[in-house]
Amino acid sequence: MTLGEVFLSELAGTAILILLGCGVVANVALTKTKGNGGGFLLVNFGWGLAVFAGVFVAVQSGAHINPAVTLGFVANGADELAPGVEMSFTAVLVYLAGQLLGAMIGAFVTWLAYKKQFDDEPDAANILGVFSTGPTIRAYGWNLVTEVIGTFVLVFVILSFSGTPNEIGPLAVALLVLGIGASLGGPTGYAINPARDLGPRIVHALLPIRHKGSSDWSYSWVPILGPIIGGVLAGLVFNGLPMPVL
Amino acid sequence: MTLGEVFLSELAGTAILILLGCGVVANVALTKTKGNGGGFLLVNFGWGLAVFAGVFVAVQSGAHINPAVTLGFVANGADELAPGVEMSFTAVLVYLAGQLLGAMIGAFVTWLAYKKQFDDEPDAANILGVFSTGPTIRAYGWNLVTEVIGTFVLVFVILSFSGTPNEIGPLAVALLVLGIGASLGGPTGYAINPARDLGPRIVHALLPIRHKGSSDWSYSWVPILGPIIGGVLAGLVFNGLPMPVL
Amino acid sequence: MTLGEVFLSELAGTAILILLGCGVVANVALTKTKGNGGGFLLVNFGWGLAVFAGVFVAVQSGAHINPAVTLGFVANGADELAPGVEMSFTAVLVYLAGQLLGAMIGAFVTWLAYKKQFDDEPDAANILGVFSTGPTIRAYGWNLVTEVIGTFVLVFVILSFSGTPNEIGPLAVALLVLGIGASLGGPTGYAINPARDLGPRIVHALLPIRHKGSSDWSYSWVPILGPIIGGVLAGLVFNGLPMPVL
Amino acid sequence: MTLGEVFLSELAGTAILILLGCGVVANVALTKTKGNGGGFLLVNFGWGLAVFAGVFVAVQSGAHINPAVTLGFVANGADELAPGVEMSFTAVLVYLAGQLLGAMIGAFVTWLAYKKQFDDEPDAANILGVFSTGPTIRAYGWNLVTEVIGTFVLVFVILSFSGTPNEIGPLAVALLVLGIGASLGGPTGYAINPARDLGPRIVHALLPIRHKGSSDWSYSWVPILGPIIGGVLAGLVFNGLPMPVL
Repeated sequence: MTLGEVFLSELAGTAILILLGCGVVANVALTKTKGNGGGFLLVNFGWGLAVFAGVFVAVQSGAHINPAVTLGFVANGADELAPGVEMSFTAVLVYLAGQLLGAMIGAFVTWLAYKKQFDDEPDAANILGVFSTGPTIRAYGWNLVTEVIGTFVLVFVILSFSGTPNEIGPLAVALLVLGIGASLGGPTGYAINPARDLGPRIVHALLPIRHKGSSDWSYSWVPILGPIIGGVLAGLVFNGLPMPVL
Repeated sequence: MTLGEVFLSELAGTAILILLGCGVVANVALTKTKGNGGGFLLVNFGWGLAVFAGVFVAVQSGAHINPAVTLGFVANGADELAPGVEMSFTAVLVYLAGQLLGAMIGAFVTWLAYKKQFDDEPDAANILGVFSTGPTIRAYGWNLVTEVIGTFVLVFVILSFSGTPNEIGPLAVALLVLGIGASLGGPTGYAINPARDLGPRIVHALLPIRHKGSSDWSYSWVPILGPIIGGVLAGLVFNGLPMPVL
Repeated sequence: MTLGEVFLSELAGTAILILLGCGVVANVALTKTKGNGGGFLLVNFGWGLAVFAGVFVAVQSGAHINPAVTLGFVANGADELAPGVEMSFTAVLVYLAGQLLGAMIGAFVTWLAYKKQFDDEPDAANILGVFSTGPTIRAYGWNLVTEVIGTFVLVFVILSFSGTPNEIGPLAVALLVLGIGASLGGPTGYAINPARDLGPRIVHALLPIRHKGSSDWSYSWVPILGPIIGGVLAGLVFNGLPMPVL
Repeated sequence: MTLGEVFLSELAGTAILILLGCGVVANVALTKTKGNGGGFLLVNFGWGLAVFAGVFVAVQSGAHINPAVTLGFVANGADELAPGVEMSFTAVLVYLAGQLLGAMIGAFVTWLAYKKQFDDEPDAANILGVFSTGPTIRAYGWNLVTEVIGTFVLVFVILSFSGTPNEIGPLAVALLVLGIGASLGGPTGYAINPARDLGPRIVHALLPIRHKGSSDWSYSWVPILGPIIGGVLAGLVFNGLPMPVL
């Protein structure tokens, strides 16, 4: 497939991912919704099934929909980024660009879907929380560690998928993200995907939302750098282990 | 298969869908039930698995059980509405008729299953909520936008299913509906299916329920028009993208 | 397979079903447990996955583990109760006997697992609720209707499974039971299985539990008769429809 | 495969299992997290999907990641511990060593991910609860019975998997663990895996956590002995039944 098709595929898949992912946070966090106060498991299901839908949409480009996965493949030394997509510097850039723009579109459409709820929301922290992640205890170093660990698990287990026969398709990565959210999302809200955090944060900065506060750019590097380190580390470790030769 | 068989198949599948779907709302919303106050994730699971059961029952007619899906196929320019069912104006009408009548039957049987709970329920809003959707903030334009977005995701991702190998069958669309409910159900209660809202609303208007109030016909066009626009839009966009040629 | 093997298979599968099913109610209802007050969705998951485990264990005998399913097959006019098990009056009796004895064993082992919690439980209604179902509003006729509807959906959709390709195996019926519980369990606690209610009720009557009250035999016929009517009705209706000829 | 590869595979899989498993308890039990008070079903999902991820990672060595499973295979009289791994005393020891060391690594990384939350947690019981299981009512004999029953179900149903066709792969055991947790986790917190409890308990004893209390070694033998008895019993009973000869 052409790089233009890769771009569209990653853009569409990441847009669906972020629309449904930010959507579930809007449903739980904003005040005037049916799901207000619905709990962390509801959030985990929303994000897990956001991945589920996004992977189906982006399947042609290998459904990375996450720069950490793309860079994990690079670190793993793969020849192709997806079947028929040769590894190259340009191709990697096309993946990242599609993912970031898709994430911005997804966050924008979430805002459309919850427009009246955003208008009525008095709490700036709730508003930012729909778009971007943030820590319960601010400590950049340890927050980074948490994001590294979460993304390491994500990419390492995805790389392990190839060795195990099962026919559940995109459901596997959806359940994995549900599980990582449930188990490792407690301290930082599990970005585990640089595009997932940066794209919506840009949209938050641009949109005219009544009671929005700061976009918290001082934290924004953590959910970018952490997932990249975690993804690359997973690619390297997996490559070093005597495992994938089933 | 004959159009009579299509009619019966869509009728039976939509009846099961609405029985289980309206059933979970009855369980959570009505006062004297085991699931009262069970939360939004319980509602999402109920509707998701309602789709699961309905799809198995209506599999012969392609399991649309939703006019937005039928019209999405029309907009997508498909030759058949299901394997062996040629696209035609009559066939489309048969699908829609089966779906609407099935939805009415399903809502009626939900009322039978929860008869004593309806008798004892003092809150008219709870009673209507079992049958039909309604917005948390009434703003017809934006409510329409929310329904368009939700149904666009539903039909667009269903159209994407064909490109991705997996063997989970009806579970895929069930999980998709669970996810759309969790993520985009907050503002309007996610009809994303015109028959799902209109059929039960008619039954609400007809049934002799003690403390029932208005059937809120002024809102009723939103969950009809929104899903139709969303489904048709998804069919057109999907057709225009260079994606399905895996 | 011999009828002795059928007996053992249904006994083991139903025992696992009831152990995990009554177990989750014990976890949620009894006071001194980790899952106390865990909500209706937790109960639905417990019963759904109880079916999941029970079906794997009883797969050789077709995994009925429910007299309503066995009698539904009879009403459907099937030649075999399972691959290699010819339909006969004796065979049906062997199924029912294995199911009832298995249910009793399962309930007994639940009591062993939660022995200290039963000893400390002051509320007789909580204790009976672990073993048997009961209505939130006592009205035998309508309670019967609810059980008929729930079991009709169970058996009708199981009969529909055969026409739809999927490879998720026992997970399909597990999810179906999860969904029926979420959606139709509100009024009576969804027995939808005569052995599930009668077996544990007998064990409740026999066991020396400190604060146990009445075994409520006056209600006990509802969760026996309702599921039998629902299962037989589903078999007859399914047989009369032009559906299974895919 | 070599025993060195078995060791690495079981170590990596058990580390992922315990990282995600202890992680979800940290998320729900520690005070300053996004999932605090998220409920027992969230815990059950976390552990179930921890198994899911761990099985993918350890698939080459048969994904025991639990001494009770390894010893269940021994009791069942299997010739191989995994395809290509002959049964021997040394091989069993390699499995157990990999599992214990993996569990310790997993618990250590959980502590890293939740470092700031552990620093801020005032309640010693919450801190120990992240690492190890404990009973709601202390009664060693009955606590042992509960762990025996839970692990019996785990190993017995896993042994039953082989007879039932399905293509959901590691999801089956993940759902089984989710179900056992929901249904039998109430009295003791379901270790059902000696390494799951002992490994993290050793790490709890070693780590310098501010408000940690005792590691409760007096209870520690229950979640070791109970699962071993349950797993061995399941292997013996399954072998004695006329079932696996499908």
